[in-house]
Amino acid sequence: LSDTPSPSRRRKRADAQRNVDALLQAAKTAFAASGVDAPAREIADLAHVGVGTLYRHFPQRTDLVVAVLEREIDACADAATALAADREPAEALAAWLDRYTEFLKTKDGLATALQKGEPAFEGLAERFWQRLGPTLESLLNAAAESGEIRSDIDARELLSAVGSLCLPVPGTSADYSRRMVALLIDGLRHESTPPLPPRTSRRP
Amino acid sequence: LSDTPSPSRRRKRADAQRNVDALLQAAKTAFAASGVDAPAREIADLAHVGVGTLYRHFPQRTDLVVAVLEREIDACADAATALAADREPAEALAAWLDRYTEFLKTKDGLATALQKGEPAFEGLAERFWQRLGPTLESLLNAAAESGEIRSDIDARELLSAVGSLCLPVPGTSADYSRRMVALLIDGLRHESTPPLPPRTSRRP
Repeated sequence: LSDTPSPSRRRKRADAQRNVDALLQAAKTAFAASGVDAPAREIADLAHVGVGTLYRHFPQRTDLVVAVLEREIDACADAATALAADREPAEALAAWLDRYTEFLKTKDGLATALQKGEPAFEGLAERFWQRLGPTLESLLNAAAESGEIRSDIDARELLSAVGSLCLPVPGTSADYSRRMVALLIDGLRHESTPPLPPRTSRRP
Repeated sequence: LSDTPSPSRRRKRADAQRNVDALLQAAKTAFAASGVDAPAREIADLAHVGVGTLYRHFPQRTDLVVAVLEREIDACADAATALAADREPAEALAAWLDRYTEFLKTKDGLATALQKGEPAFEGLAERFWQRLGPTLESLLNAAAESGEIRSDIDARELLSAVGSLCLPVPGTSADYSRRMVALLIDGLRHESTPPLPPRTSRRP
């Protein structure tokens, strides 16, 4: 806040930020089409920058993968705000869990990596929990307070459960994960008999 | 059916069967206490047989592990009969899914092995699906016919989903799997809005 950059320096920074944004968008597209080993040339071309610019901002492929995923984690967390503004709390919760499921399913290997705690993605896992945990928790709290869902669900457990249901299972159909997550969501709307074993008690 | 064994041969067979039963029970206990690499001596002692008898019936450790798991798969499938006789269909279904969850949780690594399709356990995976698939399907059908649960659930998908929820997840509490399976079970009791994407249509 204390240093005031010169106009040319500010323009340089804005250019760099624009390049980074373009590279991340291009990498996301290339990863979806060709996997995380998509050629650097393909990504640079898509972003309309040189390969040198790609390597300057992201020296290692891991850096690029992590940056893309961080941006997608943030987008998934940010989506909750619009959903919560537009819908009833339980509907917002269900729609967000669907969004989160889509996010996990399209990230080939992310669910597995997080499950296994791969070292290169440790920082990513932390951001994952720190952004998505509070997001889901506030959706759960709002829906529980309006009496639409049960109040005995832990956000982190539910994030993990959906993550497990998004792991690939041989012999299941393409929409298996979404179908099973939909079952979980229906379970949220109804108290069980007998009640679940207690874990956290959010409300007396 | 055509050959009638002599009394002494029949006795020998009965002895061998008793030894196998004792060995399988002993191995189950030893595996639970010390893992699947529990010493042969420990297992033979528990079964009150010599180590030679253990190796004659189960030359490789894999043979013993597979035989123990086959017996437990059969026991899990057979448990459905008593549950279905004693309880309302939806209660029987819920109790069986709980039994199945317990079975998976106590089999360290089984859920992971089945998930990954390890070659040594291929025959076991087949028995798993062939015994537990129809078992769960008939429990689901009975509960759906009595109107207690929805009718759009595929038995194999549900077995897989519970299997995924039984995979170990770092940072979750001990009863995480049971809690999440309980959520799934509650979901079974309620139709979703909007309905799940169709897969199998058991009833018109």
